[in-house]
Amino acid sequence: MKVTALAGGVGGAKLLDGLAQVLPASGLRAIVNTADDFEHLGLHISPDLDTVVYSLAGVASRQRGWGRSDEAWLALDTIGQLGGPTWFNLGDRDLGLHLMRSHWLRQAVPLSEVTARICRSLGVEISVLPMSDQPVHTIVETDRGSLPFQSYFVEHRCQPVVHGFAFAGIESAQPGPGVMQALDWADVVVFCPSNPWVSLDPILALPGVRLMLRDKLVVAVSPIVGGLAIKGPAAKMFSEMGFKPSASAVAQHYRPLLTGFVLDESDEAEAETVAALGIETSAQQTIMRSRADRAALARSVLAFAERLAAGVPA
Amino acid sequence: MKVTALAGGVGGAKLLDGLAQVLPASGLRAIVNTADDFEHLGLHISPDLDTVVYSLAGVASRQRGWGRSDEAWLALDTIGQLGGPTWFNLGDRDLGLHLMRSHWLRQAVPLSEVTARICRSLGVEISVLPMSDQPVHTIVETDRGSLPFQSYFVEHRCQPVVHGFAFAGIESAQPGPGVMQALDWADVVVFCPSNPWVSLDPILALPGVRLMLRDKLVVAVSPIVGGLAIKGPAAKMFSEMGFKPSASAVAQHYRPLLTGFVLDESDEAEAETVAALGIETSAQQTIMRSRADRAALARSVLAFAERLAAGVPA
Repeated sequence: MKVTALAGGVGGAKLLDGLAQVLPASGLRAIVNTADDFEHLGLHISPDLDTVVYSLAGVASRQRGWGRSDEAWLALDTIGQLGGPTWFNLGDRDLGLHLMRSHWLRQAVPLSEVTARICRSLGVEISVLPMSDQPVHTIVETDRGSLPFQSYFVEHRCQPVVHGFAFAGIESAQPGPGVMQALDWADVVVFCPSNPWVSLDPILALPGVRLMLRDKLVVAVSPIVGGLAIKGPAAKMFSEMGFKPSASAVAQHYRPLLTGFVLDESDEAEAETVAALGIETSAQQTIMRSRADRAALARSVLAFAERLAAGVPA
Repeated sequence: MKVTALAGGVGGAKLLDGLAQVLPASGLRAIVNTADDFEHLGLHISPDLDTVVYSLAGVASRQRGWGRSDEAWLALDTIGQLGGPTWFNLGDRDLGLHLMRSHWLRQAVPLSEVTARICRSLGVEISVLPMSDQPVHTIVETDRGSLPFQSYFVEHRCQPVVHGFAFAGIESAQPGPGVMQALDWADVVVFCPSNPWVSLDPILALPGVRLMLRDKLVVAVSPIVGGLAIKGPAAKMFSEMGFKPSASAVAQHYRPLLTGFVLDESDEAEAETVAALGIETSAQQTIMRSRADRAALARSVLAFAERLAAGVPA
């Protein structure tokens, strides 16, 4: 089965790693959110791309969920000593990658090619496709005004109350090289358990993407378990946007695009609500604590997708 | 005695540290070469300013002579892994400073103010004055063509044969804020044991500097001992420029500006040659192996300058 997965940061990176464990490299492509990319101290930082690439390369920190393992923070110590901004955690190993990406981008190398170079150097064999080579910036509309995503997420620790989202630049952005082809090529498109509002919605907002997905087999994995986000502000965002956070709220959010929906086995009671939306469901152990959990969930998702592709009731 | 010292990198930084040990902070100002500043991976790097500031702050590496103590190289590991340039040693602690300096310069903060901020943060009390806020770039004319200084110095390890030097931008550069005042204010101007060709000549080439020095008491300390440079390519440069490298060649190089010249006690035989140029000499232990050596040489230089100021024969 040819699989293209849409992913944001940590949860997406974990399921991608699971899929990469169980599929040949030629059978898996990833489309990754870049709408929380930002400039910081002259560096172009791509948090979701880095989380995905580090996870696939096996160099991600397992403890923190972001950044690299065996990391140190000496540069950040100096920045702090000089009175500079320390709210964004620049690791020393990580910095080398930010410097090279920024250097290449200044030389007019597109982000897609920059990402391909990084993947080659780090031994990542699957195609990791930035959603766009053009800049798109998630703006979080909050009770404290419009905040760039990283400012909301890191500097303000997701505390402001959210009223809405805007993706600045989305009108003029095009899907990156290979993105539409990856969607077209796929037997199944997997929405990883990433934040629907700020990780996958920017990808879905690119021109042509929703249209392309209309005729595809699409399976989403819920990032909400037991009414809580496994990581990050997704549940808080659902509440503040007027929805009770739940697996079924996620299915509702993506509804017209979904063929199937994977929710956590602890949320099996919600399967009926999701089924009523015309979406097939599969209850699985979705919490990925170990690398083996990632592979197991990937296998379950693929088995579910195969049943859906074959028209077998779940 | 009010002292203004002209300095380049390692040797200059050591004598400056010595002077800072024996003078009150208000009695010492440093004018530092910036003509080997360069852009690297989007960072503005000021090698001589950093060596001076790190030395005065007590955080310089004693072993390497450049960069910081307790340094690590994780960012450079990543840069190398990604196929980027590793010929310039970017330490992790050092990187934090390069990022902040580059950030401030992009915000149009002048290099002099950037340097003042760095000094305040690192606890350096003496005035460290970049020679200019405008960019000046040393170009080394060699048998392999014209090379930017850092490329000659680090990338090519000083191997090309030198035919001459050019200081690109020097015509439009002005002495930085406080530079002319520091020269005017000083009772004695000390030329630290830095490379005459590429560390002090750029400072001396700034408009007005030589004229200002004409009526000052100027004492140079030889960077050449026993025909060899204590560190770096100074002796090789003298040879390739057609001069036998020696302490007296250094005195000859600076001649019209010098009142006094400090050479190493092992070169005492050259004192007569220097005296014949109309320059007073003092033979001292000039090799600074320890911090105490630095202070001792500083005391000798100041005592010599005081004798010269009082008109007492050496």
